[in-house]
Amino acid sequence: MSSRPTDVSPLSLNRISLYLRCLRQLESEGVTRISSKELASQFNLSAALIRKDLAQFGEFGIRGIGYEVGPLIARVRTILGLDQEHRVVVVGMGRLGGALARYLEQNPGAFRIVAAFDSDRRKVGSKVGSVSIHHVSEVPTVIAETDAKIALLTLPPDNAQETCRALTEAGVRAVLNFAPVQLQVDPEITAKSVDVRIHLEELAFFLQA
Amino acid sequence: MSSRPTDVSPLSLNRISLYLRCLRQLESEGVTRISSKELASQFNLSAALIRKDLAQFGEFGIRGIGYEVGPLIARVRTILGLDQEHRVVVVGMGRLGGALARYLEQNPGAFRIVAAFDSDRRKVGSKVGSVSIHHVSEVPTVIAETDAKIALLTLPPDNAQETCRALTEAGVRAVLNFAPVQLQVDPEITAKSVDVRIHLEELAFFLQA
Repeated sequence: MSSRPTDVSPLSLNRISLYLRCLRQLESEGVTRISSKELASQFNLSAALIRKDLAQFGEFGIRGIGYEVGPLIARVRTILGLDQEHRVVVVGMGRLGGALARYLEQNPGAFRIVAAFDSDRRKVGSKVGSVSIHHVSEVPTVIAETDAKIALLTLPPDNAQETCRALTEAGVRAVLNFAPVQLQVDPEITAKSVDVRIHLEELAFFLQA
Repeated sequence: MSSRPTDVSPLSLNRISLYLRCLRQLESEGVTRISSKELASQFNLSAALIRKDLAQFGEFGIRGIGYEVGPLIARVRTILGLDQEHRVVVVGMGRLGGALARYLEQNPGAFRIVAAFDSDRRKVGSKVGSVSIHHVSEVPTVIAETDAKIALLTLPPDNAQETCRALTEAGVRAVLNFAPVQLQVDPEITAKSVDVRIHLEELAFFLQA
């Protein structure tokens, strides 16, 4: 049984990440066992989808009893690759970049921020939390030294594509892009865009429904 | 023909919002007509999906010729409800809240930020850009005065649910939630969560594939 099918849909992955959050909350409340139905009703989810999503990775649930919370958390962490440490850099130290860098520092989990970058030389050499801010021209050296594989990009749209190329040439394998631009990356690189405007436009659609 | 089917999938909506961004870029470059195939290849999209997504709202394309960029933009703006102004409040003036407030102020489009809130009385009375920061206890008055229907929530998880209830009781109809918590809302309210950790966990999955 492969624990990491490559044909898992992004939506299913999003949900699995959400289940993990819910399971952690249950664990912190002392819950040791839960059925898909209870899990669904507590977090406004669909029981059928929970079973389907988790079944892709093998059988965890015991029919009529449910899931063991602790072992399921461990299993989901492995599925998501969260049993390893991921080194992350944040590129662009504007307000959003600064907020993300601090968030990562204060909530490390599987993601450890190892460096920050900006193109403004006045910011270079200072720190965000305990993390040093480097000039973007230092991407090749710093990525090589830190072995970071994930980059968060919070740059103006004009600079995002060029910087993305420098990052992936230096060894970055996954990019989370907050710039309002569609990045072009090689097939072996994972790029995902987060755009508050797209979310707002979706809300606007539902407001008129 | 209904221009606003309620059974449009969230993924399709996300894509339509993305097409709009692409179309605006083309328009700024002086392009007046484009085929779904050209649109797809320029922005790394699927031509078949573009045709399918847009066909839900009626026929725009001319076979063999493609889409008229200007009219298509106008039509997509109407579909998304962007031909109206939407009044938005940001609740939580930490780093992320401040970044979002400034972003909205500098890029108004269909979304106009009309007020900000925080629970820290030291921030109350000051401004983010030209927008006043109110105390969260003033939500009922300020929402009634401004007639804001959309709220962006960047609060600690402990306060998010309670503040969300106050907002919707005051007349807010759509909530974009950045707190790492699943909000419970009445069925007539649209709530959407944006969580950088979920995106990171998805990247981590692909890193090991």
